[in-house]
Amino acid sequence: MKKIGIIGAGQLGRMLALSGYPLGLRFVFLDKSEDAPGGQVGDIILGEFGDPARLAELAAAVDVLTFDVENVPVEPLREITRNRAFHPPLDALATAQDRLFEKNLFRELGLATPPFAPVDSLDDLRAAVERIGLPAVLKTRRLGYDGKGQRLLRDAADLEPAFKAIGGVPLILEGFVDFEREVSVIGVRSTAGETRYYPIAENVHRDGILRYSIAPHADAALQARAEELAGRLLEHFGYAGVLTIEFFVKDGELIANEIAPRVHNSGHWTIEGAVTSQFENHIRAILGLPLGETRARGCAGMVNFIGEIPPVEKVLAIPGAHYHDYGKSPRPGRKLGHATVLGEQAAEVRSRLDAILAV
Amino acid sequence: MKKIGIIGAGQLGRMLALSGYPLGLRFVFLDKSEDAPGGQVGDIILGEFGDPARLAELAAAVDVLTFDVENVPVEPLREITRNRAFHPPLDALATAQDRLFEKNLFRELGLATPPFAPVDSLDDLRAAVERIGLPAVLKTRRLGYDGKGQRLLRDAADLEPAFKAIGGVPLILEGFVDFEREVSVIGVRSTAGETRYYPIAENVHRDGILRYSIAPHADAALQARAEELAGRLLEHFGYAGVLTIEFFVKDGELIANEIAPRVHNSGHWTIEGAVTSQFENHIRAILGLPLGETRARGCAGMVNFIGEIPPVEKVLAIPGAHYHDYGKSPRPGRKLGHATVLGEQAAEVRSRLDAILAV
Repeated sequence: MKKIGIIGAGQLGRMLALSGYPLGLRFVFLDKSEDAPGGQVGDIILGEFGDPARLAELAAAVDVLTFDVENVPVEPLREITRNRAFHPPLDALATAQDRLFEKNLFRELGLATPPFAPVDSLDDLRAAVERIGLPAVLKTRRLGYDGKGQRLLRDAADLEPAFKAIGGVPLILEGFVDFEREVSVIGVRSTAGETRYYPIAENVHRDGILRYSIAPHADAALQARAEELAGRLLEHFGYAGVLTIEFFVKDGELIANEIAPRVHNSGHWTIEGAVTSQFENHIRAILGLPLGETRARGCAGMVNFIGEIPPVEKVLAIPGAHYHDYGKSPRPGRKLGHATVLGEQAAEVRSRLDAILAV
Repeated sequence: MKKIGIIGAGQLGRMLALSGYPLGLRFVFLDKSEDAPGGQVGDIILGEFGDPARLAELAAAVDVLTFDVENVPVEPLREITRNRAFHPPLDALATAQDRLFEKNLFRELGLATPPFAPVDSLDDLRAAVERIGLPAVLKTRRLGYDGKGQRLLRDAADLEPAFKAIGGVPLILEGFVDFEREVSVIGVRSTAGETRYYPIAENVHRDGILRYSIAPHADAALQARAEELAGRLLEHFGYAGVLTIEFFVKDGELIANEIAPRVHNSGHWTIEGAVTSQFENHIRAILGLPLGETRARGCAGMVNFIGEIPPVEKVLAIPGAHYHDYGKSPRPGRKLGHATVLGEQAAEVRSRLDAILAV
């Protein structure tokens, strides 16, 4: 019976374990908190993600290592991963941790990006704005998520306050994209080199946090293009596992925003809405098992529960609704759970999504 | 966060827990073995099912009690269930534990049964055969499962050896039904009185053990009739949870064979093949939550892995296949796991089932 070690025991790790138990696997997490969502459904080693001793303990206890968060320090893992299978590759993790590396790679592989420039000083920022124009978005290169560490710059007066607020660490300025919609594609590649792609999801954010997703996004040309671009990244890294790419759509073109070298919030709909969930396919991929079909079964929508979680009895009263409570204590802005709604057509899914958003 | 206590930590309990975690629940099992399938995915209290002290410990640790095996002694539960919610009802459990009580209830509620008679002596057996005729099946009234404790009687010479082999405990003689097929219907009723039924599955047994099931069985009249009969049982007991009824089909009529007051092997296809699985609906039902839709999503087939479990990579290479390993050590005749295959039509499912059976 194989054991999977997961660095981080958040909701993603929890859902990985729940999808992997039917395959006869066991799961051990590394996390700071004993009552983390993953720890409620698997064994846990308590410790910091970057603690070499705890990482070694985890590696010794399992057959394969993976992670459910991006903010895992890469350096302590270099030694560990010499002696224990680790997927997705460290290079992909390191790239995803730095918006500049990420954008440089997009450019190298021919993915369209917003104009961007590294910013390490207020002078850098002024020069970058000169070149890129306004509006633009100033972001920390590292450790940003859910809209944290970002400032929108609308006019010249915004530069100094924005730099003061988030400067002091490496920054990047990105041209503001007046997009028509945001979509994401989830690709999965196994250690045996088999590759599959999920139907792209359309994502709607509120206050920088994903509010809801709808899939599949019925645009065959966009789907084909997204798969082609995702394939370049999977090949570049010799990837194993799930990789997510978020795009802006503008004038029918895909502009790469960022990658996540892991299962992704915009793919939670695949649990009930696809033949094989992103979670199960990640597990299959890192073990070199045949990948499962990724096609959608009808239409699906996914709503995040942020800061508070609606009563289960109200959500489940909505036809086609499935409820996912991550077992976390409520806190403003925290993702506590999600619901998926299924339906035959997009219109039905949208009206059911509205019903959940109104609970 | 509510806690569910499950008496028995077999594969059914394991799948109940895996389906209940997304609802934000926690699970505690009572079982003799620490490494039981349920214990691998939840907390476990070690003890015998009938030990009043361990049952009291379990009851004190949870909000609601249920069970995953039928061979739970009823008497020690009478006291416990006065102070802790327990579903399905003890009366249903007691009835399902005794083939004579079961058949008497079928008769009382107007469900057709094979002719039957209680047998407590060889003289009883001779008198029963006189009335019912041969072939007939002699069975222990209690503690039979997967074809254990049964003897087929073809002619008069079989009576004495059969009685010697399984007698000494209360028996029942049942007329042999030369059925066209075996089907089962799964009904679910919540503590709030809401009721739903799954599409009936066609079941094929080998050596007394379920080998595979296919659902839905596309016969609207049979479906309506099965739901009507199941409804009588649910109402009779004031039932909460999942109830399964196995029928023989002969000349288009449903002849009741037995009930299981729990999730059932012939309903495992619902995990991937129905909108809401039997496991999730059992949990919803005993908590009084709205029940989920029970309709099939396309067609599904389920194959049991008995005695040995085929390599996961071979099963998953078959399109539409999902693999379920219960984490048990192999033993002849033991159910170690199952696979579900999905398909658009029954013919596709049948050919994929054949592929799995050939692994």
